[in-house]
Amino acid sequence: MSEFSAVELIIAKREHGELSTDQIDWLIANYTSGAVADEQMSAMAMAILLNGMSRREIKDLTAAMIRSGERLDFSGLAAPTADKHSTGGVGDKITLPLAPLVAVFGVAVPQLSGRGLGHTGGTLDKLEAIPGWRASISNAEMLAQLKSTGAVICAAGSGLAPADRKLYALRDVTGTVEAIPLIASSIMSKKIAEGTASLVLDVKVGSGAFMKNLANARELAQVMVDLGNDSGVKTSALLTDMTTPLGLKIGNTLEVEESLEVLAGGGPADVVELTVELAREMLRLSGKPDADPAAALRDGRAMDKWRQMISAQGGDVDAPMPLAKHSHTIVATQTGVLSKLDALAVGVASWRLGAGRARKEDAVQFGAGIELHAQQGDRVVAGQPLLTLFTDEPERFERAEEALAGGISYGEGAAAPRQIILERLGNG
Amino acid sequence: MSEFSAVELIIAKREHGELSTDQIDWLIANYTSGAVADEQMSAMAMAILLNGMSRREIKDLTAAMIRSGERLDFSGLAAPTADKHSTGGVGDKITLPLAPLVAVFGVAVPQLSGRGLGHTGGTLDKLEAIPGWRASISNAEMLAQLKSTGAVICAAGSGLAPADRKLYALRDVTGTVEAIPLIASSIMSKKIAEGTASLVLDVKVGSGAFMKNLANARELAQVMVDLGNDSGVKTSALLTDMTTPLGLKIGNTLEVEESLEVLAGGGPADVVELTVELAREMLRLSGKPDADPAAALRDGRAMDKWRQMISAQGGDVDAPMPLAKHSHTIVATQTGVLSKLDALAVGVASWRLGAGRARKEDAVQFGAGIELHAQQGDRVVAGQPLLTLFTDEPERFERAEEALAGGISYGEGAAAPRQIILERLGNG
Repeated sequence: MSEFSAVELIIAKREHGELSTDQIDWLIANYTSGAVADEQMSAMAMAILLNGMSRREIKDLTAAMIRSGERLDFSGLAAPTADKHSTGGVGDKITLPLAPLVAVFGVAVPQLSGRGLGHTGGTLDKLEAIPGWRASISNAEMLAQLKSTGAVICAAGSGLAPADRKLYALRDVTGTVEAIPLIASSIMSKKIAEGTASLVLDVKVGSGAFMKNLANARELAQVMVDLGNDSGVKTSALLTDMTTPLGLKIGNTLEVEESLEVLAGGGPADVVELTVELAREMLRLSGKPDADPAAALRDGRAMDKWRQMISAQGGDVDAPMPLAKHSHTIVATQTGVLSKLDALAVGVASWRLGAGRARKEDAVQFGAGIELHAQQGDRVVAGQPLLTLFTDEPERFERAEEALAGGISYGEGAAAPRQIILERLGNG
Repeated sequence: MSEFSAVELIIAKREHGELSTDQIDWLIANYTSGAVADEQMSAMAMAILLNGMSRREIKDLTAAMIRSGERLDFSGLAAPTADKHSTGGVGDKITLPLAPLVAVFGVAVPQLSGRGLGHTGGTLDKLEAIPGWRASISNAEMLAQLKSTGAVICAAGSGLAPADRKLYALRDVTGTVEAIPLIASSIMSKKIAEGTASLVLDVKVGSGAFMKNLANARELAQVMVDLGNDSGVKTSALLTDMTTPLGLKIGNTLEVEESLEVLAGGGPADVVELTVELAREMLRLSGKPDADPAAALRDGRAMDKWRQMISAQGGDVDAPMPLAKHSHTIVATQTGVLSKLDALAVGVASWRLGAGRARKEDAVQFGAGIELHAQQGDRVVAGQPLLTLFTDEPERFERAEEALAGGISYGEGAAAPRQIILERLGNG
């Protein structure tokens, strides 16, 4: 590999230049080894955020991050593999019912997940509300569980795309998260290294998402769909609404509860719709276009699979989960249509109640969060309960309520019915 | 002081926002203390470089950097004080003859200087070629020397604008040097904290300077002139040519030698012209518009002052200075006018010969550098010596010659006579 200097590459990108394949390889290899310093990489990340990268550069960046670590191999499985990735939203617990639901149809789901940071929750934090459940398992355990139950949700091992692991933590503290080249390469390097055969991306759009508008979300989705398909992973994307939370429960224990409602054949219509649509897409990419996931929710097959999946990782599916010590209910101040219940406001409020963490080292409160008694678009009457806040530390209520201020509006007449799935891009 | 978060401020600047006075104060205070990390500050520096700062933000940034440390006080001196700052060029040894020259006229010159990094040399590195000379002296020693001899060139103490010291080192390794808000606040925070009454800025324009074109140089100069005058420092600026080196000698010992030629009443015309013009400007701002600095070079008064100034800091003015062990002369390949002798090419070649350093920890070779036998615009004959390279390590010749390739051109007829001083801005 040729020798470059970090400063030379930063200046090239700063001056709107295009980095060569060799330069990108050198940068990622040397950042992973520590020869390129954090303060150099953060300057580069800001230059990339502000000046962009070509499709070729993004592809090279993704490839370099994959090469920074190991690759998993599911070719020994009899079943096809399919995975889902969401760019993150408020109340987005879809992975929990989705993984066992897809596995019902003989498609193996190797779902490597993360923890929450900021106002969006993390799948692993939610599942850890289940007593005994372990997020960290070895690659061999993961493969064995995929063979025995067909579904696994676990932490990505440290060997997978270590460059991304390091870069993601850096971006989080340097204001360089919201860059399409960096988001796309981060997500896709892990998914391609993971070795799934098919991948469905749930790209969120709206106040509670990284991408605030449809055009940006569409661009991000298209970049990722192309990266996946070019690397031999059948990839498609749904663009879905994140202007208001998904479902009625936001938090850790709370989101597991709501997932269980869906697996029992009930649950809020929006959560059910998105779960079923993502399952259909994963099954279609896996060569099973006629599968009927909605039926598997109603008849208990998905719930059976959930119980196997959780038990296999030590979770006690019948044990009570931690609940918050304190609650505080906020009532509607007007009669009319709840015209706005903002995803970001609810996400930040839940975070401040203790459901999320400010720093990576922090612990989450499993019981903390928010339960909604009405969704955006519903008719409400002044004085009726609108939402209930949960926390172990009642001094947190005040700052959570501050976060909600401005996030709730009332209107006249009937609001437009909510459209969850906005667009579909990609394979097939 | 209000509490902010570094990420919040980085994102505000990234999105083209204007930072408030409180936000800038918070940022600099917390960067100085270490609460804001290097990787956060480098992302901020890149955002400032690419998105700019308003005049108000630059003024606040400068004020915050001044407040990060101590301020010197020259009010106890009977003499007025005047200082000069150059934005850095190739062969720019002007400070060496200038400080004693101005002191001849009863104006005290407290010249806090720096070391070289990259292709531009540093005044302290040059003076350290004189056996025994000490760059680091205490504030009390500095004041005593200003009283006794009227001139001092020394290292800035660590108490002066420590935020700038830290930020400058960071910018150097993160590709964020060339930003007008950062350059202007860096220079002016030190000069204002130093407490000089008058200041003349030598803003270089051309290939060997940070500012490659006149428009950028003019903007930088105007920002700095305004910062100085708004803070009560009488400030003006000369925009001067840096397309080709100043004088005939580039290096450490070599530049001291050429300075001695100027102080002895000789030396290259361009070095003499710039020295005299900067001296006139400093003397004018100090209320001495009728002083005749050219005469003080011719009649030995400036040389006497130099000997006092160097001796006061332990320098042996009569001792031989270190010379390079090896030399290599390059001859003209054509007969005609030397139409280009590029400042950057010569500066990089000298740096590679060992006159400069790649990292702050490196030592310089005092004897390394380049002697020109012709200047840009001179007529040359094929086969005549054009320049001589000096180094202690002959293996360095090859890379130095590579740096010169493309930096030398020949033309027909007479070249335009060189104009050193391009514009004058500011006070009076």
